[in-house]
Amino acid sequence: MITRDLGAGRPLRMRVFDYIRASGPVSRARVAQLMGISPGTISTITAELIEAGVLEELPDRRKASVSPRGRPPVSLAVRADAFVVAGIKLSIRDRTAVLLDCAGNRLAAAQADALSGSLTPTEQIDAIGEMVEDLLSQSGRLRSDLGAIGIGLPGFVQHATGHVHWSPVLNEERIDLGRLATERLGVPVTVDNDANLVALAELWFGLGREKADFAVVTVEQGVGFGVVLNHELFRGSNGFGVELGHTKVQIDGALCRCGQRGCLEAYLADYAIAREAAVTLKLTETAQPPIPELIDRLRTSADAGDARAAEVFLRARRHLAAGLSTVVNLFNPTLLILSGGRLRYDWLDAEDLLAEMADFTIKAGDPPALRIHEWGDQLWAQGAAALALSHATDVELGLEAVA
Amino acid sequence: MITRDLGAGRPLRMRVFDYIRASGPVSRARVAQLMGISPGTISTITAELIEAGVLEELPDRRKASVSPRGRPPVSLAVRADAFVVAGIKLSIRDRTAVLLDCAGNRLAAAQADALSGSLTPTEQIDAIGEMVEDLLSQSGRLRSDLGAIGIGLPGFVQHATGHVHWSPVLNEERIDLGRLATERLGVPVTVDNDANLVALAELWFGLGREKADFAVVTVEQGVGFGVVLNHELFRGSNGFGVELGHTKVQIDGALCRCGQRGCLEAYLADYAIAREAAVTLKLTETAQPPIPELIDRLRTSADAGDARAAEVFLRARRHLAAGLSTVVNLFNPTLLILSGGRLRYDWLDAEDLLAEMADFTIKAGDPPALRIHEWGDQLWAQGAAALALSHATDVELGLEAVA
Repeated sequence: MITRDLGAGRPLRMRVFDYIRASGPVSRARVAQLMGISPGTISTITAELIEAGVLEELPDRRKASVSPRGRPPVSLAVRADAFVVAGIKLSIRDRTAVLLDCAGNRLAAAQADALSGSLTPTEQIDAIGEMVEDLLSQSGRLRSDLGAIGIGLPGFVQHATGHVHWSPVLNEERIDLGRLATERLGVPVTVDNDANLVALAELWFGLGREKADFAVVTVEQGVGFGVVLNHELFRGSNGFGVELGHTKVQIDGALCRCGQRGCLEAYLADYAIAREAAVTLKLTETAQPPIPELIDRLRTSADAGDARAAEVFLRARRHLAAGLSTVVNLFNPTLLILSGGRLRYDWLDAEDLLAEMADFTIKAGDPPALRIHEWGDQLWAQGAAALALSHATDVELGLEAVA
Repeated sequence: MITRDLGAGRPLRMRVFDYIRASGPVSRARVAQLMGISPGTISTITAELIEAGVLEELPDRRKASVSPRGRPPVSLAVRADAFVVAGIKLSIRDRTAVLLDCAGNRLAAAQADALSGSLTPTEQIDAIGEMVEDLLSQSGRLRSDLGAIGIGLPGFVQHATGHVHWSPVLNEERIDLGRLATERLGVPVTVDNDANLVALAELWFGLGREKADFAVVTVEQGVGFGVVLNHELFRGSNGFGVELGHTKVQIDGALCRCGQRGCLEAYLADYAIAREAAVTLKLTETAQPPIPELIDRLRTSADAGDARAAEVFLRARRHLAAGLSTVVNLFNPTLLILSGGRLRYDWLDAEDLLAEMADFTIKAGDPPALRIHEWGDQLWAQGAAALALSHATDVELGLEAVA
């Protein structure tokens, strides 16, 4: 689409909508001022958005008096009750889902174990369908209230087309998951990489709400990365988004699950810690326990004073610091959020990590703030719902055909 | 500035101006369409820009007939004769300067050896002043025609404030070079990192003219990096811009000039090649020739069949490939431009480099095109002039006070 290639990213009215959603109730005048767009243009665009049923006017609580022109001051806000959306996070171990209204209020939540590590696309879609039915009945909503479903999954995902190049939760490659799920479930379904969802959740509901630029690094089964530039998730030009876990921290280094060597993930993800745990705990010749248990046992040894066990975590932290320094050198965000539910962050002391990161980073200008934000899986799912909300709004505004 | 932090980057009228400058003569209707902004808003903005003397109307050559509404079709274009700008590239070996008109036509050029590797700020500014006088007299222009001077230099430069945190061409750190030069030369002076200037030159005059997103990696005395996102140079949030040369490709690896270890630059820049050349050519116990000669001699040995000499270049190429894969993984550009005058690119065969880069890159979606573009120093200076042009236009439009 020419507009996408040559234009300023999302169309202006969607950017106006995104601003209002991100800022909370806000006056037209302030939107115009902050976006550097004329008040007349803002009035036209917001009238369209109110007409489409996605924005509403609220009395402005911050101003008791009337404005100089004599009109009562009003704020614009996203209309909470326009429709509901479901968000689902898939992983090789489990799936988590939430139902939100348009303002981001959580109406219901559900969690289930994964039936097995990887499933056929149809099996995954049917499992998602069941979870969504459960959410709707929990909250007393109708199927017809459902505006869209958002799915977050690990792997290489092209959000715009719904194409999944590869994901550990699917036993087939190159699947048009968005299209297949939309057809099978009868409601618009949009998909994205799971780390992008964390960034979206932070942008919409979390620490990134006030920030124009921030980056999220997730550490759990793999290393994920999402970056927000100018209040928008940055997806790169071919739509597969950004990939930190497979940047090289050591040429010809440790073997990664992706088949390449020296990837950041090969030093840091839970499988990387687990394979060192197996050696350190002298378990290489026995049947090995599951990864979470291996890591727990290594942590216990480290806490009991085993220097070799502690070294495994310190080495992982040092590689994480190097990876974060690459993010700082290349994106220069004001805020860096470290997130992920599975790895225990007690070995990731924020101050130590920040000091190590500073040692690897070029010292010009202010370093970013570093925040460790241990989201539960429900909040990853909330990111998936944020994605669905964005998609449903686009559909509602006629911007995008149902995929 | 609030607008900068929360807004969509540059104000709308500057983005409209940038579009027209990048696209060449273009109709109002097409600007409105491509930018996703209403024709009415575009008319208002372009009227302002014409009033300010930076845009002009041209008869549209592509359409012979009148438009359906009966008005003769016109294109908008940047006014070439509004003022002239000078661009200067400083390096530790020499300085190069060009004089451009507003449409980017080159009016004069000059080159001089650096007096010494690093100078005091005042010495550098005076040397720049002399070059600018030379350019003006060469082209028969008056001092009063000069709209701005742009300076490009290696190091850590904060473009918005003109602050140079560190540069090898200055013998003092933390210098407000933009302000000092503006005061001493009596004309607005803007400064930037030299690799950013190459990206700007590609954006305005070169391979990037048709591209929304591309990245430039320069290899010469150091490793430089500039990235254009959505037709704009990306500078990160603290204004010091992006830094690829000091991202880590090997923890605890080769010693870099910056004092850290394992930086990409420490495997790739000319000083890195030269120190391996000294060992390979068994020159470590004698007085060493200058770096360019050392590299030439190593290249000669490699060409004559010396496998150890060839290995030095192959190793550098492999590290460059890893660095480029990081750019592709994190920015996912459609085009990657490799640039730089000093290093000889005969050892950087584009196909071999692309294959090695692909081996280090996650394979999802289309890889970027790779172009090796050996700019001369005059074209780096042209980037500095592009910067001056942008700055002078901002000043002209009252967007920015004279620094």
